[in-house]
Amino acid sequence: MNIAAPSIENAGPFTRACVWHKLLANKIVEVAEKTKKLGQDDPRRIVHSLKVGLALTLVSLFYYIQPLYDRIGKNLIWAVMTVVLVFEFSVGATLGKGLNRMLATFSSGALGFGVHYLATLAGEKGEPIVLGFFVAIIAATVTFVRFFPIMKTRYDYGLLIFILTFTLVSVSSYQEDKVLRMAYQRVTTIIMGSFVAIVTCICIRPVWIGEELQNLVVNNIENLGNFLQGFSGEYFKISEDGQPLSDKTFLQGYKSLLTSKNCEETMANLARWELWHYRFGFCHPWKQYVKVGTLTRQCAYKIDALNNYLNSEIQTLNEFGCKIQDPSTKICSESGKALRELASMVKKMNQSTSVNAHIENLKIATENLKFMLDIYHLKDAKLQDIIPPAEVALTLIDVVPCIVKIADAVHELASLAHFKTPAIRVSP
Amino acid sequence: MNIAAPSIENAGPFTRACVWHKLLANKIVEVAEKTKKLGQDDPRRIVHSLKVGLALTLVSLFYYIQPLYDRIGKNLIWAVMTVVLVFEFSVGATLGKGLNRMLATFSSGALGFGVHYLATLAGEKGEPIVLGFFVAIIAATVTFVRFFPIMKTRYDYGLLIFILTFTLVSVSSYQEDKVLRMAYQRVTTIIMGSFVAIVTCICIRPVWIGEELQNLVVNNIENLGNFLQGFSGEYFKISEDGQPLSDKTFLQGYKSLLTSKNCEETMANLARWELWHYRFGFCHPWKQYVKVGTLTRQCAYKIDALNNYLNSEIQTLNEFGCKIQDPSTKICSESGKALRELASMVKKMNQSTSVNAHIENLKIATENLKFMLDIYHLKDAKLQDIIPPAEVALTLIDVVPCIVKIADAVHELASLAHFKTPAIRVSP
Repeated sequence: MNIAAPSIENAGPFTRACVWHKLLANKIVEVAEKTKKLGQDDPRRIVHSLKVGLALTLVSLFYYIQPLYDRIGKNLIWAVMTVVLVFEFSVGATLGKGLNRMLATFSSGALGFGVHYLATLAGEKGEPIVLGFFVAIIAATVTFVRFFPIMKTRYDYGLLIFILTFTLVSVSSYQEDKVLRMAYQRVTTIIMGSFVAIVTCICIRPVWIGEELQNLVVNNIENLGNFLQGFSGEYFKISEDGQPLSDKTFLQGYKSLLTSKNCEETMANLARWELWHYRFGFCHPWKQYVKVGTLTRQCAYKIDALNNYLNSEIQTLNEFGCKIQDPSTKICSESGKALRELASMVKKMNQSTSVNAHIENLKIATENLKFMLDIYHLKDAKLQDIIPPAEVALTLIDVVPCIVKIADAVHELASLAHFKTPAIRVSP
Repeated sequence: MNIAAPSIENAGPFTRACVWHKLLANKIVEVAEKTKKLGQDDPRRIVHSLKVGLALTLVSLFYYIQPLYDRIGKNLIWAVMTVVLVFEFSVGATLGKGLNRMLATFSSGALGFGVHYLATLAGEKGEPIVLGFFVAIIAATVTFVRFFPIMKTRYDYGLLIFILTFTLVSVSSYQEDKVLRMAYQRVTTIIMGSFVAIVTCICIRPVWIGEELQNLVVNNIENLGNFLQGFSGEYFKISEDGQPLSDKTFLQGYKSLLTSKNCEETMANLARWELWHYRFGFCHPWKQYVKVGTLTRQCAYKIDALNNYLNSEIQTLNEFGCKIQDPSTKICSESGKALRELASMVKKMNQSTSVNAHIENLKIATENLKFMLDIYHLKDAKLQDIIPPAEVALTLIDVVPCIVKIADAVHELASLAHFKTPAIRVSP
């Protein structure tokens, strides 16, 4: 646009219109392409959008059913509002918001009614004062409660709705005679709205946040494994057929992991609300996924250091480099296998026995490398030649305890979540 | 409680009551202590809670003013609702939500009215069908638009309110005759509510998220500087009086930085809404703070590696260690000074000339260290003795380009945000 601007200023109105038309067309094509990409990247977004449209149409049907409208009247807006505000992308988030909203409306409605009763005792002039006092006190208290970390993560929306409904019920009560009826209608319509939202969310291609969290953790562990398995080939410039690898995407897979902490915690908090998922059942240990995620991230920080050695110019291997090649390659391949096995364990929710064998091999390879470094004696070598391979070797030794910790955490998860033991096949 | 349980089961009702009473009392004391700590950690939380109480009392006054109630009636609930939903901890978040809500209500109200007009053309039987069709289409489209990253970060709340108001106006229009009046009242009350929330938020001890972001970035840079300045003393076991340092808290300060990415981005997005802050003015380059933050984080990953060398058992310095001590200490102290100077530059929003001098010194010290490593020749040394100090030296060399990048980004910030040039004092 900056380039086009000067030519437009000197041009006639027709040329100007043509230029702007072209710019507009380009912009439209750009937005259309972005939209297409957004839908292709995750088609569930389109499904979610259609689900919201459907749920709103369903809930607005209540308006067109005359007997229902005659009974509940304008309070039906609460049902519509509930659907818009409660419907979220994942089942966990929708359930969490829906349950929070229903509980908060019910309890704050009751409290609002109590305060209304107290206020009427104070006489006509005292009523606004008593109401105002209670609104200020209760709103301030509940707002402060929202700062408690445990309340913030699980009941923040509920507390917000608590303040909202309490204030609405208590101040409306000043001008409304049938407070109890109003409160009752509001609770009913909010339950109706939550019900429509939850049912639509669960019945049509649901997105379970628990599954998402599991996939995220599995992918993260797999990415670490892929990096380690590919690293030795890349660093020592070998692959199975003796050639350097051409596809290097696996070297970047772990990067998103470095900053995924908040995401994992939010997902684990939402997954708690998915009480009756067919695979995870009741009270699945979601916290343990966060623990596995944290350990994976700590491992990724170290792996980031390994990645830096790949980026620096790689010289041909000197004598020392050749010495460490074998045990380093062994560590890389065994860690890769162990991590992939751990990932598949979490994914299939099966116990696995082969992980321990890989971990044992890993420990032996580490001891070999350590021993080699211990006995290696420098005779007349340049420091610059020795340091890079030695750093790689030491970082690899450093990565091993991280992998052992991840394995322990996954085993703990397996026992907490009662992973299935695979049937042992006895050969005839 | 697990320990107390068996004794309770065998005890009489009086003992049981005593035990439960004690447990309850302990719980209450615990909650009270947590509450006190929450308030003491950040007293602005208490102020915020009181502000919410006040704003709600103010807005509920509208209900008690009979002429106003007679005019607007039950639609006043929208003002109360707006205050509860719009009032946030920081000015940026409150302004963002308030403006989003007002704009969305206005535009969706107009669209809803248009759809209502179209629907009436379809006759009495066709009206619900046309309305339902438009509700589904528009809700689905706007829900999909919410997935665009740029819309998600800035206008998510507005889009939600757009769906909400559009659905409410168009479905209510089926049962309501005075649609235009209803839409007008709704817009008015929402403006009233937003106004009360924004004024209360800004006038009583406001929390500017822009200032928070600036402080966060400043603290992060300072923490890096403190670590580097303290590191050489700790690693080589020296301090200014030749003793190892006793206070080691500065070594942990950088840790929170490793995962603060999302937090910084959210703050920068909210800070955009604070259009007229007295210090930052209009269109402050908040994106640049995120860039500085990202570079600081990349530096922190490397510093995390340095911290690991502190945790490993430190042997007495060998000949090689003594050789690198001087240039390493120089690098640490110069980077510390440069980073602190950069932090103070951002904090005071002043240009600074001394940063460049420190950076030059830093580069010279790095060249010295590199040269030393280049010419150092290993004669009959054990690898295990050489590696740890050599790794420290190489990591320090690696940290320097990160610091130079941070300095460049801060200088860019200084020119984008027009930092003041300090008056040069001429000696008489």
